[in-house]
Amino acid sequence: MITLSSDFGSPYPAAMKGAILQQSDARIVDIAHDFPRQDVEAAAFWLREVLPYFPPAVHCVVVDPGVGTERAAVAVRAGEHVLVGPDNGVLLPAARQLAADFEVFEVAYADPGSTTFHGRDVFAPAAATVHEAGIDSFETGERFERVSEYVELQFPEPTERDNGVTGEVLVVDDFGNVITNIPGEYLEGQFGSDVTVNGAWAPARRTYAAVEEGSRLVTVGSHGNVELAVNQGRGDERFSVNPGSRVRLRWA
Amino acid sequence: MITLSSDFGSPYPAAMKGAILQQSDARIVDIAHDFPRQDVEAAAFWLREVLPYFPPAVHCVVVDPGVGTERAAVAVRAGEHVLVGPDNGVLLPAARQLAADFEVFEVAYADPGSTTFHGRDVFAPAAATVHEAGIDSFETGERFERVSEYVELQFPEPTERDNGVTGEVLVVDDFGNVITNIPGEYLEGQFGSDVTVNGAWAPARRTYAAVEEGSRLVTVGSHGNVELAVNQGRGDERFSVNPGSRVRLRWA
Amino acid sequence: MITLSSDFGSPYPAAMKGAILQQSDARIVDIAHDFPRQDVEAAAFWLREVLPYFPPAVHCVVVDPGVGTERAAVAVRAGEHVLVGPDNGVLLPAARQLAADFEVFEVAYADPGSTTFHGRDVFAPAAATVHEAGIDSFETGERFERVSEYVELQFPEPTERDNGVTGEVLVVDDFGNVITNIPGEYLEGQFGSDVTVNGAWAPARRTYAAVEEGSRLVTVGSHGNVELAVNQGRGDERFSVNPGSRVRLRWA
Repeated sequence: MITLSSDFGSPYPAAMKGAILQQSDARIVDIAHDFPRQDVEAAAFWLREVLPYFPPAVHCVVVDPGVGTERAAVAVRAGEHVLVGPDNGVLLPAARQLAADFEVFEVAYADPGSTTFHGRDVFAPAAATVHEAGIDSFETGERFERVSEYVELQFPEPTERDNGVTGEVLVVDDFGNVITNIPGEYLEGQFGSDVTVNGAWAPARRTYAAVEEGSRLVTVGSHGNVELAVNQGRGDERFSVNPGSRVRLRWA
Repeated sequence: MITLSSDFGSPYPAAMKGAILQQSDARIVDIAHDFPRQDVEAAAFWLREVLPYFPPAVHCVVVDPGVGTERAAVAVRAGEHVLVGPDNGVLLPAARQLAADFEVFEVAYADPGSTTFHGRDVFAPAAATVHEAGIDSFETGERFERVSEYVELQFPEPTERDNGVTGEVLVVDDFGNVITNIPGEYLEGQFGSDVTVNGAWAPARRTYAAVEEGSRLVTVGSHGNVELAVNQGRGDERFSVNPGSRVRLRWA
Repeated sequence: MITLSSDFGSPYPAAMKGAILQQSDARIVDIAHDFPRQDVEAAAFWLREVLPYFPPAVHCVVVDPGVGTERAAVAVRAGEHVLVGPDNGVLLPAARQLAADFEVFEVAYADPGSTTFHGRDVFAPAAATVHEAGIDSFETGERFERVSEYVELQFPEPTERDNGVTGEVLVVDDFGNVITNIPGEYLEGQFGSDVTVNGAWAPARRTYAAVEEGSRLVTVGSHGNVELAVNQGRGDERFSVNPGSRVRLRWA
């Protein structure tokens, strides 16, 4: 199984599928091709959320603002999963989630015809090669060279304050739900009460439907982080925040 | 075969696929993940239109404004098809279309880790379980309990008037074509003539191309209902209607 | 393998998949369903770019402003590929790219129930039939009739000028990159220099990242044509062009 993730929109991912199918009969599953454009951190967040739900697979990821420059291509072996993509950190949070003792390998590639579509010309063929060779092919060290230097990516940590916690917005989902970097544990003692979000009161509730339609709430999303939401509405608009915005929660 | 339908946008449906693939090698086919948000009636309409074109399959549907509340999860057996989703009526119009004598079963589920993503944590695993157990597993009554009370959903009926019919808009498709609840039979005698739509004249024609580019027409869509359209344009804008709007047709 | 391409948006393509799966177990791969509405030339361009990356397959294409009129349905055999779609030229540029000596066959079809959804009622079943019959079924001439008259489609040719070349915009991709009909060879001697685009200077560079974020450049895209782009921005907005706009390049 090969999964595909990118910020390519349409129809470019189809060319990646064609390139894979020239080499492999693997099942291909799309994760998403509408990740925020060239936003490595947002893609890293979503991959960390989604990939652990998959059985062992090769995950091909192309969110690559540095396409055509000297940045390396890497394969990350994490347990029985392999992630293939550019060396810009996008694979690391998902890899850490899949296996604490992941290993990073450099993927050598011939100069492709294109300097602008490495998804099709470099990463898709590399993912197909890894899939066909099997995960044990990393053992021999012949095909891929293990490296100890690679680009890291860590999400920012929230800061505990008197009677509260301050974090930031990581991503906003398609519903307008605002996903922060604040672990849900911080909200545990607050359910049923009101808390302040950037100075304004909002109820802490376990489900969207626990507040009236159109009302704001603070909850813990399926990702385990604190989320600012509106029942059947958009949290980003009603809380006036965007990716990167500061989120300061205080308890009553 | 398992089909997936939701209003989840992206990338949440990928986690549903991962959850299924942990349990099953079934072919997975996406119906749509951009159904109008939390609009049970619109999803029910589209499923009734699309699912009957499929060979026997398990259809997993998640348009679920009540996620995290006490609403039940149900499996509906309709001929050789099984529909799995929330007990809010979304499955019923498609089920009736697939088999008049459908049966509804309650799907028991353990409290999932998440209160906000039952698509991944409840419905996808339930669909995979049904797929692997096979449709005959309903016979024994061991795994699923047949229920006689469940949430119904019927589309509104149009009203015949002197020399015409009054209905309403069910959905607007991506082209801007306005799909009403008025059966196409009402238009049968009118093709080639003009009719009035909410008081203004429009030609009744069998094909979009029968009127000039940019012109309005009344036709019968592939779904068999009366449709308000514009050749190579948007019917919703030119007829000034939205889902729920009244549509009054009168013959000359 | 059957690929699907259309301008249908969602959820109509799902009904095409159902119709295919009634007849065939073929792998189904989506190319795109968001081609610009009823824009035969844009779809023809994208298909020419993407289909050659696929292994032999049946490609079902429905961008069909003439649906419901007398236009024929055709199957084009190009090497080991077969393209199925309306006789409006949309298949031709891809077919020429796949095999210079392609052949065109007319696909007879019974009057479908619907006059507005030939994708589901005519083209999907035809593609499944071709897939199941195999490419050799064309040899016998029993099932499909070879025709010598069909609708052609050629992209406009650029014009060489004193010290430059004038072409036009074929399509704008989801990133806002502006793809012209000017072959990349014209730009070969200019990399590293500045050129004028419709009278204003812009650097000719091989990669987006070779200019600062937010800056304009002229490059050669993965399709081999001259592209007007902005590093991490939208070229169509910054160069003020749209599909059909004239693009005049002059060398210093």
